[in-house]
Amino acid sequence: MNVVERLAALRELGAYDGGINRALLTPPERSARELFASWARASGFTVTQDRVSNVFARRAGARADQKPILVGSHLDTVPTGGAYDGAYGVAGALCALELLDSRGIRTAHPLEAVAWAGEEGSRFPLGCLGSSVFAGLNGEAEVMAIVGDDGVRFSEALASSIGGLLDGVPMRGDRNVAAYIELHVEQGPVLEDRGLSLGIVTAIAAQRRLRATVSGRSGHAGTVPMAMRRDALCAAAELVLAFERAARDAGDAVATVGRMIVEPNGTNVVPGRVTFSLDLRSPDEAKLDTIEAQLGEAIGRVERARGVAVELEALERRTATPMTPQLRDAIARAIDAIGERYADVPSGAGHDAMSLGKIVPAAMIFVPSIGGASHVREEQTADRDLLLGVEALAGAIVEVDRTVD
Amino acid sequence: MNVVERLAALRELGAYDGGINRALLTPPERSARELFASWARASGFTVTQDRVSNVFARRAGARADQKPILVGSHLDTVPTGGAYDGAYGVAGALCALELLDSRGIRTAHPLEAVAWAGEEGSRFPLGCLGSSVFAGLNGEAEVMAIVGDDGVRFSEALASSIGGLLDGVPMRGDRNVAAYIELHVEQGPVLEDRGLSLGIVTAIAAQRRLRATVSGRSGHAGTVPMAMRRDALCAAAELVLAFERAARDAGDAVATVGRMIVEPNGTNVVPGRVTFSLDLRSPDEAKLDTIEAQLGEAIGRVERARGVAVELEALERRTATPMTPQLRDAIARAIDAIGERYADVPSGAGHDAMSLGKIVPAAMIFVPSIGGASHVREEQTADRDLLLGVEALAGAIVEVDRTVD
Repeated sequence: MNVVERLAALRELGAYDGGINRALLTPPERSARELFASWARASGFTVTQDRVSNVFARRAGARADQKPILVGSHLDTVPTGGAYDGAYGVAGALCALELLDSRGIRTAHPLEAVAWAGEEGSRFPLGCLGSSVFAGLNGEAEVMAIVGDDGVRFSEALASSIGGLLDGVPMRGDRNVAAYIELHVEQGPVLEDRGLSLGIVTAIAAQRRLRATVSGRSGHAGTVPMAMRRDALCAAAELVLAFERAARDAGDAVATVGRMIVEPNGTNVVPGRVTFSLDLRSPDEAKLDTIEAQLGEAIGRVERARGVAVELEALERRTATPMTPQLRDAIARAIDAIGERYADVPSGAGHDAMSLGKIVPAAMIFVPSIGGASHVREEQTADRDLLLGVEALAGAIVEVDRTVD
Repeated sequence: MNVVERLAALRELGAYDGGINRALLTPPERSARELFASWARASGFTVTQDRVSNVFARRAGARADQKPILVGSHLDTVPTGGAYDGAYGVAGALCALELLDSRGIRTAHPLEAVAWAGEEGSRFPLGCLGSSVFAGLNGEAEVMAIVGDDGVRFSEALASSIGGLLDGVPMRGDRNVAAYIELHVEQGPVLEDRGLSLGIVTAIAAQRRLRATVSGRSGHAGTVPMAMRRDALCAAAELVLAFERAARDAGDAVATVGRMIVEPNGTNVVPGRVTFSLDLRSPDEAKLDTIEAQLGEAIGRVERARGVAVELEALERRTATPMTPQLRDAIARAIDAIGERYADVPSGAGHDAMSLGKIVPAAMIFVPSIGGASHVREEQTADRDLLLGVEALAGAIVEVDRTVD
């Protein structure tokens, strides 16, 4: 089965209304892990799992003393997900290993296709859950205690036969890794816009999440003169635009106000309070510092000019994960070898490669997302690009095998 | 009983949590009409009602051929109302008539204190319901068919003993009126800000209500570069500020975006659609035309610059109701006579004087609202100002009696 056929099979699991809802440790997600394991066994690979339900399919290497090169992604989706995010990297990893088999290529390192558990953080509120525990960034005991949005503890969901560990699959003991490569859809419009089928990720962006609360003074829309208003929404509008402008000026950064709540939100009432989210990302932390400083200046100006008070809370701060240059070079050679062009692109979204990148050399290959659509049922990548991505990954594995210890 | 005591009695009807909920044709609203009628009878006035539950208390005039001067306001409140909006004008009208009695002043015209039914439009979706039917602006049959937000038809609520017409009170036959004067709290901060106890309304502002829908393109907050975005919220923010600026530039106008809905409203999603309300008022229609034209230009600019589409729907258009100059002059003389100062102010809020002003000479007197608070439990006017307002009204009635036919 090629990667297109495998994605067609996986998209049946958790399907609804053309979209996919496959949350970690639910029946469809378990079915996806079982399908992955059955495919891997059918191709002669050895399947193991670990205690948080990460699943590994191992192809032996030429030298017994080598740590494995891991290649993979995740099988869970957001509640309104599509068929490609994550699933492509898992199915593609398996296909790449089979491609090496079919071409009689033996690598020095063992290779493992891996399906990381719960990358999306949708049911259990921890993104990259499985890869994070594997990399030792989060403790196993800590993760076992996490309660899902359905009130079920992670440890209980694992213990249940419906969502839990796969029956009869041996437990993986070690955490040794030589390198990590992840194949993923871009989830943005850049590759499509540039007419390219492949991208090599330069870094997974640093991200900061904040929340702003603007407190003004509510009043009757007909009776409070403009000069006497302390309109929280007008103040928020200035800040939304200042935040956008700061990111545009900085370049190589994105700033988003995605969520806004206006109170009391009546057509004939001057808004007294507005709360909004701020999401800020760049591969370059210094740019984030600059943007935050400019936002702070804008807040001071707006507070003085409009008589409002603005409270800014920092909710989350994720540092950038640069991809390993030697691995990027290895991928570039592999893409050159198949006569394709590529772009170096940052990843604004988070990936399991963030976890692995903290402990071993790591890299990512992107294929285009049609219209840049992501986390929606319309998410799609052309079959040709899907197949090219697997070719590039197979070639990259061979190059990386020669590059890393 | 003076007006302060009467407001203290009325505020018990529909009281909850310090606020007042007294919707048209509910038990507390009926109780308020009954209380008004009992006070009027105790003072020797003749009480009548009409077929939509407006209640009138008549003090005879010296000349039998004269039409009455009507003085009043409404007894219903918004769901989260306070003790002064409407009730002050009804209780104050009764007190003014009693003041003339106590001073032995006989007017040529009969005088009627009136409690108009359902000014707020809270339960039944028609503002100034009672005064509008009285003035012939809405047909009786049409109003009888209106369904309340509780699913009860106006005619059914009227027929019920709980909310309906007052028992044993004769039906008023005619609609003859010589002039109309309404005493009301300002519902805004202007008089307080200027240190004044009294205002004479120049006009009830024209009002336009519109709804804007900005359609952009949703996307992942991390993966869509700034230059490729069509962010509906950033576009809406520009329009909010342009609308505000246009009203400030015009002067003597207010523009409010009170309600805004962002979709999908996720912290990590570029907003694809934003809907917001626009409320625009001025005593001067030409200023509204100018502001709407500037909004239209801003929409064109934003559409071109940001690649979004903006749809603007006109929901409601109320023309201005200028107050009658001879009546304003009469009120000014009365205020001068008691040695008080006043300001000429527009009314941004709607009032029953809009209905009456369409058919007869009409005018309004405002007293200050502490902190400009309106339609909230904190709504308040100082006792001294409440008493001054009644004095001014009593004097104004005498002046108007000499002025109108």
